[in-house]
Amino acid sequence: MKTIFSPDHELHRSPGELILGEFSEAFEKPERAQLILDRVEDVKLGPVLPPEAFSLEQITRIHTPGMVDCLKTAHAEWLASDRSGAAYPYTWPARGMRTDRVPREIDGKLGFYSFDCGTPITATSWQAIKSSADVALTGAKLINEGESAVFSLCRPPGHHASTSQFGGYCFLNNAAIATQKLLDDGAKRIAILDVDYHHGNGTQDIFYNRDDVLFISLHGDPDQEFPYMLGFADEFGLGKGEGYNLNFPLPWGTTWDKWSAALDVGLKRIIKFSPDIVVVSLGVDTYKKDPISQFKLEHEHFSAMGEKVKTLGKPTLFVMEGGYAVAEIGINAVNVLTGFEGR
Amino acid sequence: MKTIFSPDHELHRSPGELILGEFSEAFEKPERAQLILDRVEDVKLGPVLPPEAFSLEQITRIHTPGMVDCLKTAHAEWLASDRSGAAYPYTWPARGMRTDRVPREIDGKLGFYSFDCGTPITATSWQAIKSSADVALTGAKLINEGESAVFSLCRPPGHHASTSQFGGYCFLNNAAIATQKLLDDGAKRIAILDVDYHHGNGTQDIFYNRDDVLFISLHGDPDQEFPYMLGFADEFGLGKGEGYNLNFPLPWGTTWDKWSAALDVGLKRIIKFSPDIVVVSLGVDTYKKDPISQFKLEHEHFSAMGEKVKTLGKPTLFVMEGGYAVAEIGINAVNVLTGFEGR
Ligand SMILES: [Zn+2]
Ligand SMILES: [Zn+2]
Repeated sequence: MKTIFSPDHELHRSPGELILGEFSEAFEKPERAQLILDRVEDVKLGPVLPPEAFSLEQITRIHTPGMVDCLKTAHAEWLASDRSGAAYPYTWPARGMRTDRVPREIDGKLGFYSFDCGTPITATSWQAIKSSADVALTGAKLINEGESAVFSLCRPPGHHASTSQFGGYCFLNNAAIATQKLLDDGAKRIAILDVDYHHGNGTQDIFYNRDDVLFISLHGDPDQEFPYMLGFADEFGLGKGEGYNLNFPLPWGTTWDKWSAALDVGLKRIIKFSPDIVVVSLGVDTYKKDPISQFKLEHEHFSAMGEKVKTLGKPTLFVMEGGYAVAEIGINAVNVLTGFEGR
Repeated sequence: MKTIFSPDHELHRSPGELILGEFSEAFEKPERAQLILDRVEDVKLGPVLPPEAFSLEQITRIHTPGMVDCLKTAHAEWLASDRSGAAYPYTWPARGMRTDRVPREIDGKLGFYSFDCGTPITATSWQAIKSSADVALTGAKLINEGESAVFSLCRPPGHHASTSQFGGYCFLNNAAIATQKLLDDGAKRIAILDVDYHHGNGTQDIFYNRDDVLFISLHGDPDQEFPYMLGFADEFGLGKGEGYNLNFPLPWGTTWDKWSAALDVGLKRIIKFSPDIVVVSLGVDTYKKDPISQFKLEHEHFSAMGEKVKTLGKPTLFVMEGGYAVAEIGINAVNVLTGFEGR
């Protein structure tokens, strides 16, 4: 299987995040992608290719131009208003506040286009963000050209980013952008299977009213886990999209038995949907040693996960999402891919 | 004029806030209230009285029981989930997320009931928060008993807190709670005049559908200033409340001439409304040296402000809000009161 990777991801490094009551090192860091790449090379998964550069129009098929513009220009505006360091939002449009106008000033704009305080924008973040979307788009292009499976080693991740909001370490929704490109290039139906520990709230939001994309997500119960305000079992889609969204919120401590049983139900739904292509939002923070997650998957379960996805028999684009047990992130992510390949 | 004050305010001290790209000392700190009290005593404004303790029912006339409960129990839940330090929210219910259910877990709950990341809850915050509301309620009670003017030296401040969300250094909306008590005790109409540099988004939100409370706010244009997503000139109230909300967003650099001209228009509207009582949300961050604000008022303008409010000829409750030029906060706040008293 080919891997798409760009060293540009290193251009995004969070100075830290305010969680657990203190400002501390961010869990989402460049070492993650490097260790996955190392593992890809160690197991000789296949060629590692750089991304092509796609136009911004391919990105604004999913995200609003205003949000994309904010990601591009936020840090320059931040500096222009006498700040230094990374641009952090600090206030958000709450219930009862207006969402019909975009604030002119940088702090307002950052809050308007985001939903948490752990996703800062540095001077060089945009290049990493754009490149991560290109990594996903290049994977989509290869699938379209006939590859049966491709690994888009995206960083920063994407599944928390919605149409017009970044957050949860995510800026652009790489999986959604790749999915839209596959549809634009001729696919009729795509299933997105999100196996990250966290609900793919952004992806759900983006496709919630559509029947050409089936979104299936297995994740920590939002009653207990980020993003808290989306990802419940009763969210089935709206309008034309009703019936094309399926969430499996699972409790802390979920083991492979329970997790894979839910996956089996999800896979059945995908088979019934009969997609042309499957896009996997591949997060490996379901691993038992993940520092911010509470599921209990072990190394071999990631291989088994890949085997199960393979049974769908569809062209499959793997898009890297989360995973914060950094030392073992390469083993877990690549196990899914080698499991898929049956080796 | 009597001042209501409680030393309990010291029980709330923010460990810091993530603004301007780094985690730094909070602008809202206990010294603020102490320096105002010192000035009250220096100028012999009048007796300084402790607050009475009111029931929580008086608070839930304004705020949802769920939000009040969160403020009370958040820090204990924070500790119970293996955290230390102050409880900070880190993610918020964004556009497209659900607001029909309250997350069970503490991080989700904190985000659900707040709108920024600079309003942390410490182990002892609740006692300060409750006491600040009591300071306002005691002021209301004295007005009701016939005092022509009372100064409720509240801290933490309140005007950013809405029905179900805290933020902007505010937890309970002291001015709104006092206003409701005055109405409960027989007043028919109350005008709230918010002279803080920032829009009183919480107060506006609370009374937006009501015609028994006229809300007038002069503040930095939300296009440029916190809270960014509310406080524009086209917000007039809704339903029965239409015509009972009046905002004067003013640009950076606004001087007394422009500011007082807007005040004069606001005062005319108050006269037309013919309130039984006037509640002043007294922020003095309009001062030219305020570190986070951009208006240009000088010491003597605060005296002139008090004189103008006096011309309404109504019983007046002053409720302390913001002001971060700490060294001079006592002079500015008390100048309004002595100006009102004509001395
Ligand atoms: Zn995740
Ligand atoms: Zn203020």
